Amino acid sequence: MAQALFSDTIVALSTPPGAGALAVVRLSGPAAVAITAAVFSKKSLPEAAGHTLHYGTLRDSASGDVIDEVVVALYRAPRSFTREDVVEISCHGSDYVVRQVLALLLRHGARLAEAGEFTKRAFLNGALDLAQAEAVADLIAADSALSHRVALNQLRGGFSQELRELRGRLIKFAALLELELDFGEEDVEFADRTGLARLLAEVRGVVAGLLRSFELGNVIKNGITAVIAGRPNAGKSTLLNALLREERAIVSAIPGTTRDFIEDEVSLDGLRFRFVDTAGLRDNPADEVEAIGVRRTRQRVRQAALLLYLFDLTQMTPGEVQAEIKELTEGLDLPVMAVGNKTDLATPETPKAFAAELRTGESGAETPLVFVAAGQNQGLEALQAALVAQVRGSALENTASATIVTNVRHARALETAAAHLAAVQAGLDTGRGTELLAADLRHALAALGEITGEISSEDLLTSIFTQFCIGK
Amino acid sequence: MAQALFSDTIVALSTPPGAGALAVVRLSGPAAVAITAAVFSKKSLPEAAGHTLHYGTLRDSASGDVIDEVVVALYRAPRSFTREDVVEISCHGSDYVVRQVLALLLRHGARLAEAGEFTKRAFLNGALDLAQAEAVADLIAADSALSHRVALNQLRGGFSQELRELRGRLIKFAALLELELDFGEEDVEFADRTGLARLLAEVRGVVAGLLRSFELGNVIKNGITAVIAGRPNAGKSTLLNALLREERAIVSAIPGTTRDFIEDEVSLDGLRFRFVDTAGLRDNPADEVEAIGVRRTRQRVRQAALLLYLFDLTQMTPGEVQAEIKELTEGLDLPVMAVGNKTDLATPETPKAFAAELRTGESGAETPLVFVAAGQNQGLEALQAALVAQVRGSALENTASATIVTNVRHARALETAAAHLAAVQAGLDTGRGTELLAADLRHALAALGEITGEISSEDLLTSIFTQFCIGK
Repeated sequence: MAQALFSDTIVALSTPPGAGALAVVRLSGPAAVAITAAVFSKKSLPEAAGHTLHYGTLRDSASGDVIDEVVVALYRAPRSFTREDVVEISCHGSDYVVRQVLALLLRHGARLAEAGEFTKRAFLNGALDLAQAEAVADLIAADSALSHRVALNQLRGGFSQELRELRGRLIKFAALLELELDFGEEDVEFADRTGLARLLAEVRGVVAGLLRSFELGNVIKNGITAVIAGRPNAGKSTLLNALLREERAIVSAIPGTTRDFIEDEVSLDGLRFRFVDTAGLRDNPADEVEAIGVRRTRQRVRQAALLLYLFDLTQMTPGEVQAEIKELTEGLDLPVMAVGNKTDLATPETPKAFAAELRTGESGAETPLVFVAAGQNQGLEALQAALVAQVRGSALENTASATIVTNVRHARALETAAAHLAAVQAGLDTGRGTELLAADLRHALAALGEITGEISSEDLLTSIFTQFCIGK
Repeated sequence: MAQALFSDTIVALSTPPGAGALAVVRLSGPAAVAITAAVFSKKSLPEAAGHTLHYGTLRDSASGDVIDEVVVALYRAPRSFTREDVVEISCHGSDYVVRQVLALLLRHGARLAEAGEFTKRAFLNGALDLAQAEAVADLIAADSALSHRVALNQLRGGFSQELRELRGRLIKFAALLELELDFGEEDVEFADRTGLARLLAEVRGVVAGLLRSFELGNVIKNGITAVIAGRPNAGKSTLLNALLREERAIVSAIPGTTRDFIEDEVSLDGLRFRFVDTAGLRDNPADEVEAIGVRRTRQRVRQAALLLYLFDLTQMTPGEVQAEIKELTEGLDLPVMAVGNKTDLATPETPKAFAAELRTGESGAETPLVFVAAGQNQGLEALQAALVAQVRGSALENTASATIVTNVRHARALETAAAHLAAVQAGLDTGRGTELLAADLRHALAALGEITGEISSEDLLTSIFTQFCIGK
């Protein structure tokens, strides 16, 4: 991507809105320093070196009013996030003060930044590729250890590096084909067709692996919806509360987290679970209202990624449990975990009996089985560990690549690339003309290039960056 | 206040919580740089000069995981907000990232800051006096031009300067008295009693002026509650919406403001008004429910700072308006503004007739009168201007001092000082003994010293700083 140059200077609040000790207003562009200097008490600012901090006051030059006491952080192009001159003004964290500061800078010639415009400039000025730029938004949205790690890896160029290697191999492949094409009339086959086939198979394997990683990527980014179903009084709500309270106790060690806590979400070992409590299931609903509740439970089960079937050890037989799970998951390809509750009230032999009978059930499929006393907070750690193991195990077995694709746009581009590579493969197999092979290969390269932005359009950029928050 | 020294290093998130491009985590204390350096990729940080910026990665030294790419701002003692070594880490604005960064710094020896602890250290280390420190919180909470200006003036030491001058005069007075006291047995009156009386009167005048300014200060800080009352269908809700919509249109030019908008508050020319809509008033309520509504309206009128009496120009006579205002404000010392609505439906002569009759009403008191067509957004600017003029006029006429007291604690201290000064005055008038005069004077000086923190207790500091947000 060629060096892009912008003649205007953009400004936005870069910290979250609301009251706090500090707020940071960011400017980027050729006039960032001049605009700041016009309203800042320290007049030597334009001569100051980059990567320095300057304390002073912001003053409305028209009214003479002091707006705030601030610290100005100065970054000189190209050593900045956008590779332009960047000024970050730390002012007092009040919406009123921020409005005044923004209004002042707008009056002095800055323009309010659009959503994602700082990152877009960083991309267009060559500081980041497109996948890295997208990782900035993912990183801000990350709310579990895994989603954070994946976004950070992408931001630091891990995914881009893998794609570059992939494209490198394809370009080598394409070069051989194009060479053959140039000498087409002489009917010479420069490219060793066997070597080509092996290279293609390798590349297709990597693309397929990346595509499979999207399943885990989706789970990492969006969490796993686990529906808790079972008969009335099995202890579903108690279990839900126990699972959530456990996490609350952990996160509350650091303040400021509880306010963004979503009632029924919990992060276990880096994976985000959304637990859904449901109405109790009864064979013969007492009335129409209860029947609707049961229908809704079945509907939610169909939308779940995981079913937690909870039963009361003292009330049900293994056969009943098996029958009810079978009925609930009829026709669904849904992982199930059976959870026997109230171990504190059951005889010590009961869990063993369930384990023996459920493990050898008629279906032959092994349903993981865990025992808890939800009201006593007993067995919860084992349950959490089993949940994590089940989700990670099933997702990871599809994921060979170390890189995990989390972005729908990237997955679509990989799908397009995979389809074109399949066409190349078919062409090789059927001895199709070199020209057609080369065309398909170019399409595959273009699809991969879209991910890192080596190939991009204004529409694509707009659709990506408008999803960012203002100020980023 | 002696230089206070702290051996521990505190840390907190200093920007508002939530998602944004940036978040700033602040450390202050002797180990601020060492703790940061232990987890930061740029190992030369401990040797770096103050007021510099450093780009790098934060890494969990135990797991080796990269937490984030950050910029570290370095301030060297005493050139910092707290006069200690201060490090501000700009990381990506995600709650997850912030939690990880905080947890990392805590593991490396920082302690989570208590509410207001950075500002408290700034005060105890002599960077700010107490009134200035309190202004930090006021500035963050400021949401109108006037409250912002008053807080900023206080932060910049305007109020403290005025108090210092006041105390200087009293100390001169006290010195004269104490001198007399030392030579008491010789029964010499060193202090010129006439000069003393003049000085005392001057000081008392300033204190009284500051106390009076608290009325305006309160209005500036907490806003003016204006109750809109009138008969059913006078157009009260239409007027409320028109007043609020007007402001909304103004504030929405800058993003991020609407989310903190309180439904019925509006800022007019720097003053915050809280408009309260009420149930319509009828002479003969139709039923018990309506009667309760009317009683509640009367109750709200009693709590108001201003009554907007709204009437329909086409439905009422000037006499009825006058009678109803009189009944509503019976026994209350409440400013009233009469607002004639629906000028678009009334004859052009109607407003003139109302103006003539209401201005010469039997009470003789002049009720300001404004005409609007609320549904057509006509006359609103004139109404807003009249509201501002009325509030500012009545509050300002009590305020001689350029400094405006907004803090209840300061007002209480000024009241205490005023009471002791009155006792000094009484003592002078009745020829009370010098020793008693000197004691009262010392109490007055102590009360004034409490405002700037020249005299302070741990309890006082705790009660002040725990009202701050964490991170300030």
